[in-house]
Order: sequence, then C-alpha cells, then structure tokens
Amino acid sequence: MLTRDTRGVYIIAATPFAPDGAVDTDSLRRLVQFYIGHGVTGLTILGMMGEADKLTPEERRLVIDTVMDEAGSLPVVVGVSDPGLDNLRALGAYAMDKGAAGLMVAPSKGPAREDRVEGYFHAVCDALPEAPIVFQDFPLSTGIPVSPHLIRRLSDAREQIVMLKHEDWPGLSKISALRGMEDGARRRLSILCGNGGLYLPQELARGADGAMTGFAFPEALVQTVELHHKGDTDAAEDLFDRYLPVLRHEQQPGFGLALRKHTLMRRGAIASDTTRAPGPKLTDTDIAELDRLLGRLETRLKE
Amino acid sequence: MLTRDTRGVYIIAATPFAPDGAVDTDSLRRLVQFYIGHGVTGLTILGMMGEADKLTPEERRLVIDTVMDEAGSLPVVVGVSDPGLDNLRALGAYAMDKGAAGLMVAPSKGPAREDRVEGYFHAVCDALPEAPIVFQDFPLSTGIPVSPHLIRRLSDAREQIVMLKHEDWPGLSKISALRGMEDGARRRLSILCGNGGLYLPQELARGADGAMTGFAFPEALVQTVELHHKGDTDAAEDLFDRYLPVLRHEQQPGFGLALRKHTLMRRGAIASDTTRAPGPKLTDTDIAELDRLLGRLETRLKE
Amino acid sequence: MLTRDTRGVYIIAATPFAPDGAVDTDSLRRLVQFYIGHGVTGLTILGMMGEADKLTPEERRLVIDTVMDEAGSLPVVVGVSDPGLDNLRALGAYAMDKGAAGLMVAPSKGPAREDRVEGYFHAVCDALPEAPIVFQDFPLSTGIPVSPHLIRRLSDAREQIVMLKHEDWPGLSKISALRGMEDGARRRLSILCGNGGLYLPQELARGADGAMTGFAFPEALVQTVELHHKGDTDAAEDLFDRYLPVLRHEQQPGFGLALRKHTLMRRGAIASDTTRAPGPKLTDTDIAELDRLLGRLETRLKE
Amino acid sequence: MLTRDTRGVYIIAATPFAPDGAVDTDSLRRLVQFYIGHGVTGLTILGMMGEADKLTPEERRLVIDTVMDEAGSLPVVVGVSDPGLDNLRALGAYAMDKGAAGLMVAPSKGPAREDRVEGYFHAVCDALPEAPIVFQDFPLSTGIPVSPHLIRRLSDAREQIVMLKHEDWPGLSKISALRGMEDGARRRLSILCGNGGLYLPQELARGADGAMTGFAFPEALVQTVELHHKGDTDAAEDLFDRYLPVLRHEQQPGFGLALRKHTLMRRGAIASDTTRAPGPKLTDTDIAELDRLLGRLETRLKE
Repeated sequence: MLTRDTRGVYIIAATPFAPDGAVDTDSLRRLVQFYIGHGVTGLTILGMMGEADKLTPEERRLVIDTVMDEAGSLPVVVGVSDPGLDNLRALGAYAMDKGAAGLMVAPSKGPAREDRVEGYFHAVCDALPEAPIVFQDFPLSTGIPVSPHLIRRLSDAREQIVMLKHEDWPGLSKISALRGMEDGARRRLSILCGNGGLYLPQELARGADGAMTGFAFPEALVQTVELHHKGDTDAAEDLFDRYLPVLRHEQQPGFGLALRKHTLMRRGAIASDTTRAPGPKLTDTDIAELDRLLGRLETRLKE
Repeated sequence: MLTRDTRGVYIIAATPFAPDGAVDTDSLRRLVQFYIGHGVTGLTILGMMGEADKLTPEERRLVIDTVMDEAGSLPVVVGVSDPGLDNLRALGAYAMDKGAAGLMVAPSKGPAREDRVEGYFHAVCDALPEAPIVFQDFPLSTGIPVSPHLIRRLSDAREQIVMLKHEDWPGLSKISALRGMEDGARRRLSILCGNGGLYLPQELARGADGAMTGFAFPEALVQTVELHHKGDTDAAEDLFDRYLPVLRHEQQPGFGLALRKHTLMRRGAIASDTTRAPGPKLTDTDIAELDRLLGRLETRLKE
Repeated sequence: MLTRDTRGVYIIAATPFAPDGAVDTDSLRRLVQFYIGHGVTGLTILGMMGEADKLTPEERRLVIDTVMDEAGSLPVVVGVSDPGLDNLRALGAYAMDKGAAGLMVAPSKGPAREDRVEGYFHAVCDALPEAPIVFQDFPLSTGIPVSPHLIRRLSDAREQIVMLKHEDWPGLSKISALRGMEDGARRRLSILCGNGGLYLPQELARGADGAMTGFAFPEALVQTVELHHKGDTDAAEDLFDRYLPVLRHEQQPGFGLALRKHTLMRRGAIASDTTRAPGPKLTDTDIAELDRLLGRLETRLKE
Repeated sequence: MLTRDTRGVYIIAATPFAPDGAVDTDSLRRLVQFYIGHGVTGLTILGMMGEADKLTPEERRLVIDTVMDEAGSLPVVVGVSDPGLDNLRALGAYAMDKGAAGLMVAPSKGPAREDRVEGYFHAVCDALPEAPIVFQDFPLSTGIPVSPHLIRRLSDAREQIVMLKHEDWPGLSKISALRGMEDGARRRLSILCGNGGLYLPQELARGADGAMTGFAFPEALVQTVELHHKGDTDAAEDLFDRYLPVLRHEQQPGFGLALRKHTLMRRGAIASDTTRAPGPKLTDTDIAELDRLLGRLETRLKE
C-alpha cells in the first residue's frame, strides 16, 4: 500500500489497443513485464495517458484485472477520476478489492475554487475511507489551480491522502513550499513528479521522492532516481540529460501520447501504437522526426 | 427525425434519481408525461442537465429505453457527447436503433481550435452517417469558442448536421449571422436556443426556430414560441416576461440544476430532487429563496 | 471614505467619448449630474465598463479630475487595476490625493492560485496603506476563482479591505457564506453587487448592502435598494422586475457596454455612444431590438 | 524592414530596471551590445518578456528611443499589443517613425473566437497600413487558439502580415501545415519560433526560418540556426542539446523571466535582475539551483 514514505518510480502505463480499437490484453501483459524489466517501483494505470476516459467501465475493470494478475507483488495505483462520485467510488472499491496499492484522483472538473476542491476531496475520502489517495495536481489539464496550503490542509485532515502527484507548471517552488511546511506535527507527504519528468533532477533536489510519469524509457527515470537517492546527483543529472531531448519531445501535451505509444511499440513493449479517437495520430513527418531523435539517443547512450 | 426545418420546444429533460442515487424510472415516466402534458414538441435527454456524464453506459441505455417507451410518437433527441468517439458511436447507434429523432454532440474537450472542432465533427458524422446531428454550441461550458462560419461550413459539408443548439453568450448576433448566410444554395439550419432561455423572445425575433432548454415551466417556453410563431410577438414577450424572474433564477450555471429538480418535484413531476455528486444541493436558504420566487410567479400568473 | 458599513448604490460610470474617440469631458460632467439626479449614493469610475484599460494614464487622470470636480461631496471610488503594481500605486495615490473615497482592485491576471491572489492583495495594501480597498471578485472576467474564506482572511488581515464587489456567478451562496463568518471578532464587510444586478433582490435578501453596477437606469437600482432597506421587499422586487427584461438584456458580457452607452445617449446623459476599439458596436438590428425593449419598459412603467 | 523571407535570430530583449524599478537605460544599451556581440540578426523589444504591460507609455517610448539609438542598423521589432487599438496605433506609429523593422501583435484579449481574431487583425492593419506585422500566436498565454488556416487567410488578405511568431504548444504540426499551404499563388510567410526555443531543431527541420525568443544565451540560438541553415543539422542539434538543460529550465512560463534576468546579470549584460511587481522573484533555493545548472553548462561547453 502507498504510504507517506513511498518513493521510487511509479510508471504511468499506457493502455494498448489493437488496430481495431479493442483493449489488447496480451500487449498489456507484455507492457507490464517491460516496465518490471526496466526496474520500476510500481505502476499507475488508468491515468490520463492511459486514455481512461475513453474506456467503458468494463474495459477499465479488464485493465485492472489484467495488470493485477501480471504485476504480481508490484504495487499498482489506479486512476479513478470520474465526473460522477458514484462511478469513482465503484471503480475505486473494485480496484482496492483487487489489491490496488492506492487510488489517484484529480480535482473534479466544474467551477474551479479551492473551497470546492477541498470539499470534493473530503467527499472522495468519505466514499473510499480505506484507500490511500494520490492527489493529482495538474492545473494545465484540469484548469484548476491549487495552492500548496490546500494540499497540506487536506493531507493533515485526511490521513489517507498520502501522496501528491506533482505536475503544476511552473511548480518547483511548490515542492519547496510543501517540504517547508512539514515538521513533527505535520507528517510528510510522498511527492512523485509527473509533467513528463521535464524537471526531475531539480524536483528530486527539492525533496521529491521520485517520478510518476509515462516516459517511454522507464529505465531513465529509474536510474535517475536511484542515483539521486544514492547521493550521486551529478551522475543522476548526467544520465537524465542524455535522455532530455527525447523526454522533452514526448512532453507535448496530448500529442505526447502518440509518441510514447509509437516508441513503446518500437521497443517491443506493445503490438500497436493505436490510440482511441479523438486523439493524436502520427504523420510520416512526425515519425521521421521521432526516428531521428531516437537515433540520436541511441548514439549518445553508446558514448 | 429532426430536419433543417424542425421548430418548437425540445425540452431538456432532467434525469430523476431516487434518494439513494439510483435512476428512478417511475419518475422518469412521470416526467415524460409532465412534459407532454405541457405541450412540448420533443424531448432532449442525456444532456448536461441530464447529468449524463455521471451515468454508466447501462444507465444511459436505461434512460433511453424508458423515455422511448413512454414518449410514444414524440421525437426524442439523445445527447451522446463523450470523451471517446467509440463510446459516442456505440451510444448513438443504440439510440438511433431505438428510434431517436437525432443526436446532440458538443465539441470534444481538449485543446480548443476551430480546425480541431471541424475535424471532430467530420469524425462524428463518419461514425454515425445516418443520424441527424445537433451541434451544441455552448462555449461557457465547453471552453471552446466557435465562429458562425465554422457552423455554416460544417452544415454545408454534412447534410446530416441539421440543427444548432445555440447557447453562446452573448450570442444574439450569431443567430443573425447564421441566418444572413443562408440563401438558395446554402440550406437553412434549424436553430433551437438553450442558455436557459434567457433571451428567447430576442432569439426568436432574430430567426431562431424555438427552444431547447430545461426550464421547469415548459409551458412558458411552449406558449412563448407558439405566440411568436403566430405573429403575436407582444403577447409572446408579455407571457415570457412574467416567467423571467424565475427563469433568470434557474439560469445559474451548474447550480440551476438543483433549482430545476426541486421545482419539478414540487410540481409533482418527479419524486425526489436528488442530484448526483459532485453536484449542487439546496440549503434551507436556497429553498426559501426559491419558494419566494415561485410564490411571486403564482401571484403574477393570476393577475 | 468607504467603510465596512457603506451601503447604497455606487453606479459604475461609463467613460464618454466623442465620435473621434477623445474623452468627452462635457459629457462626463453631464453624466455625473445624470447619476446624481437619479439618486445614487456614489460613483465608481475607471472600472471595466469605464474602458479603463483603453485609456492612457493622462486620460485616466483627466477622468478622475473631471469627475471629482463635478461630483462635489458625492463619494467616488476609482478602479485602479493594472498589470503593473507601480502603475496601480501611482494611479491610486493620485486618486486618493484628489479625494477618492476608495480604490477598486481585481486580482492580477496571471497564473490563478489563491495563495497568489492573497500575496497580491497584501502587496496592494502595502503599496497604498491609507486607501480603503474594494476587492472586485469577478471570475468570469478575470479567470481567477476566489473562495469566500480567502476574502474573509484578507479582510481580517487588512483593516483597509472594507468592501467586496460581489460578481461571482453563481454567487448567491457566497454572500450567505461571508455573512455567516461574521461575528463579534470578525468585523463585517460591506458587500455591493455587480454582475449587472441580475440577482439584486436575492442578493439584498442574503445580506448585501447595495449595488455597484452600471445599469443605464440607475433609478431602478436606487429604488430597489431603498425599498429593500425600508423593509418593503415585495415592492422592491416588483419595481425591480419591471426593469428586469432590459437589465437582463444589458447583462451580455462585453456587449452590454454598447447597449448601456446607447441607452445613456438616448436618455440625454452623454452625447455619443462611441466605444473604443476593439469593442462592441451596435448594428441596426441591435438598435431595433433595444428600441423595442425600451419601448416595452416605458409602457410598463406607466401601468 | 521585415519581409516574408526574413530569417535568423530576433532575440526577445528584456527590459532592465534599476533596483528602485526605474528603466535602466545604461543597462539597456549594454544589453543591446551584448546581443549584437553574440551575433543576433535583430531585436524584438517590448514583448511579454520585456514586461511591456508594466511600462507607462513614456517608458515604452524611452525603451524604443534607447534601443534604436544603440542598435544602429540592426533591425528592431517592437511589440505593441495593447487592450486598446488607439494606444496600439499610437505606439506603433511612434515605433515605425523611429525606424522599427516591424511590429508584433498578439490577438486581443477578450472573448476568443476565430472570426473575432480575424476582424481584429484587419483592424490593426487598417490602423497601421505601412507597418510589417508579426502575428504572435501564443495560446498558452493569450488563451486564444488559432487555426493554421486563419493565419494563412490573414497573410493572404494582408500583404503586410509577413511573419508568424510561432509559439503554439504542441505546435510542430502547425509549421508543417503552414508550409504545406504555400505555393506559387500563396506566398511564403516568415516563421520565427518562440516558446523558449524548446523545440528549435525540430522547428527548423519543419521549415521555420529561425528563432524569436529570449534565451539568455543568444549565441546558442544563433549557432543552432546558422548550422542548420548551412545544412549541418547534426552539428546544430548537438550544439543545441548542450544548452537544452538550461533552456528547458528557463522555459517555465512567467517564472522564466526572473531566471533570464539573473543569468543576463551574471553574464554582465545588465546591472540588476530586478523585475516589476507582480512578477517572479528568485529565492536562495532558486539561485542555487540555477547556479548548478549554469555550472554544468560551463563544464559541458568545455568538453
């Protein structure tokens, strides 16, 4: 189960589809093994990158079942954000019952206001009182800005809110602010970083515990975090910087999903790079551009 | 089936829930009879006011089945907006198969840009080539602004896009612009007005064909439109103005849903004013305020 | 000077321009007399409706000088919102020096987050420590949502933040929330309502102290507030409801300015309905539509 | 004067302030020499990074005068975006009179809709018919999405719209789309890239003509563009990638300005890193983080 001390890399998993659009469970199993093989600490499924909002409830349960079965003892976090609280609760209860390590929730769409965000997270906690909750703070996508004080206040009031998925942008100072609020009385919060990992070395230096994002080279995240945790921050950043051109290329909101799926396909992790409509599709130009970047990465990794 | 000449009042129907949150099909049948009894031309179900995004696919089909069964020959438009095109297509095909008169679709959330809106509606039409489509233009809710030229262009390119649900705000000039683009070669578009009906007499005067909104006094919309179509525009507006204080009160984005359900409950149309979370709930102050407004309306209608 | 007990109608004043676009100070003087003649409690100049962001600093000072000279003892609030704090301070100091009753400030554009709004208002108060400050809460225009707790906290921390210009929408419950937080230790805040006055009777019933908006029939606001304060709430609402069709028509964001200026011109308050570009211009259809509504109002007022 | 064939690096210039907040013209002259010394093709002043919206009209003219005097024959583009068209025209006319090479304009704030953007740019062109115009397409900041077709249509209709400042994100496909629309009849548009330069090599490969952004190492932009134009795309990207960690760090919306000014100060280009409030200020943590990144860059450049 997730705790306030969880650290490492929880990779955000894609949902593989067959070319006809059906969930491809064989690829999903292969993808889980791919992630495990690259040393991730855990998995996060059914996030935005997992195209969760385009899956039916049955498909979401199928993804949970398949991943749980394949992941073995690896902790799995399940994204359960939903316009309706009842549906969120139902999926969250299903996931916890199947052995999820925690649930990830973003503030509900609707009129943004911090008192409403606060009320919403209390309602989520009331609905799923046993589940460790990850607060996904991603204003660029949700349109809902959140002050660090609100995250702290919720985390004080609700023991089960154990983790922040940090993806405000710019957001480095938010990590520093949250760490600065911690003391004996106010327990630490686990902070894993999303936002494509674009500032991961800086985030780790400011006190983040790791990464929760979907870079198609999970080994880069794993090694960066491990080297950092060993205290070898220069080696961590040297390693990270080699991947930065590709990581930055993936960090194109919305569009990055297609690049990631294509890269995962090329790396043999999934059979098809199909995304569900409406979603990004790669043109020949996009693929040639990606090829070039991946070729450059390969060269650099051999240096 | 909806056509480019459809006119009248297509009331946006609430989805009644039992106090425990389950879809209340008895109330749903009663509500359909209530709407029919007040003279509506048609029904629009599973719109935003129908809390469609908080229903499971099974519940959406249950609502379709129940309403279709109860509505008899009354035309029923079904809202099918969905983050995923496959889910939209599945629900749309189901609804058309059950006898829907048309499908209502809002631009997909995601990065707003008119070329993307255009591509999206072509994809929707490709997915459901037989269904009459209502373009729901509601930027305040979708965050996606749409030029009148784009609506016209889509409606030229796709015969099946027969109707605009007009709820841009301010939006009176958009109706005039669209009517001004029509000529022999460019066929008219049916325009029904949402936005709570706040400017209905003005919209009718500019060429709108009627209303598609969820005011809890459907008879007010019906009579306003009928009087207008008879050419008695002063009587239409006199009638409308009596209801305006209550209509304006309902026209509070998001919050209005709770007021409407409460009013429908008081009028005997549904058994409970329950909304699904996260959604508005009325406080005692809200109810006393509404009581006062409804009492004043009653007095005025007797004058 | 504004205080926490200020009540009444502070009309938001238009800035009249000559047809060539220059500030028309003769009309501005006539407009002040028009407002005084209709019984307003005070004036608010250089607000959004005053097209302040299209004036040069010299023109803003000219408007302040002219209005102050003409208004005599009538209190004048000056809008000083500006992207730069130095410019805000300079204009605010100028206005206070000329005898302004207070300054109105909206949250700074930029990344919305409540801790940033809070820091910004502290900076404004530090920059202008002697000036009574009106917090303009208008999320539809600023894009910045604000919780009632933040308004209360700022008003507790800063004695000089004496008034809320309330124009959140929906926002009735915000007034109730703020009044509910007041007790012996937490001093009341004056609340005047903007948002075109669309819910003024309801806002007064929930504890608002009056109106701060720019309806072209200020006498309607004045009489509504006066009747309400006398306890004759039914007469207040009867009066208000007569004006509601026109008031609602003016309440079209952005576009309403052109309607207001045209109406003020027709009433003889200003010489020209010119607005500065980019801004709304009335078409013949718009004018005919407004004519009809004003004609209907005239008839109704005679009943 | 800017033309449709302009290429190279037009650096976005900061506006230096003394610690007391006054425009520091000595530093401004030094900064111009710094940019010239690093080989830029031209300068762009009074953009968003130039804090133009926090300057008074006099200060904007002072910046224009100082830069024009110091820049000699180097072309200077002047940002003139303003809420009011009259003020835009006045500043634009002043700048052109002083010898500006062109004017940069972003779509006007206000309700986003492509027909309004189109109308606005026609009004701008009517107001300044002699000036070459740069269309700044920066939706993340303006909130206004713009289709490539609209840019093309405006550029066809108005000979003077000669350049696109490309900073949509994701936006690589927009460059390809625009280049794909060019043929004999539709003349090319110069495209310089902003958005911090985060995807500059990819943008150049897709047909961009250079950069228009404010990276504090202008030599990196200059060399990347020159190597690319010589056809040495690998060397261009190798060079660029060395700077990428720092460039990405600067690319934090809003906050990046403080990092750039601090770096420019450290490089001796300006005397103080003061920004005007409300704006970002660096904490000790921020400075230490930047130090580390600059130290790493220095090491890498020596390799």
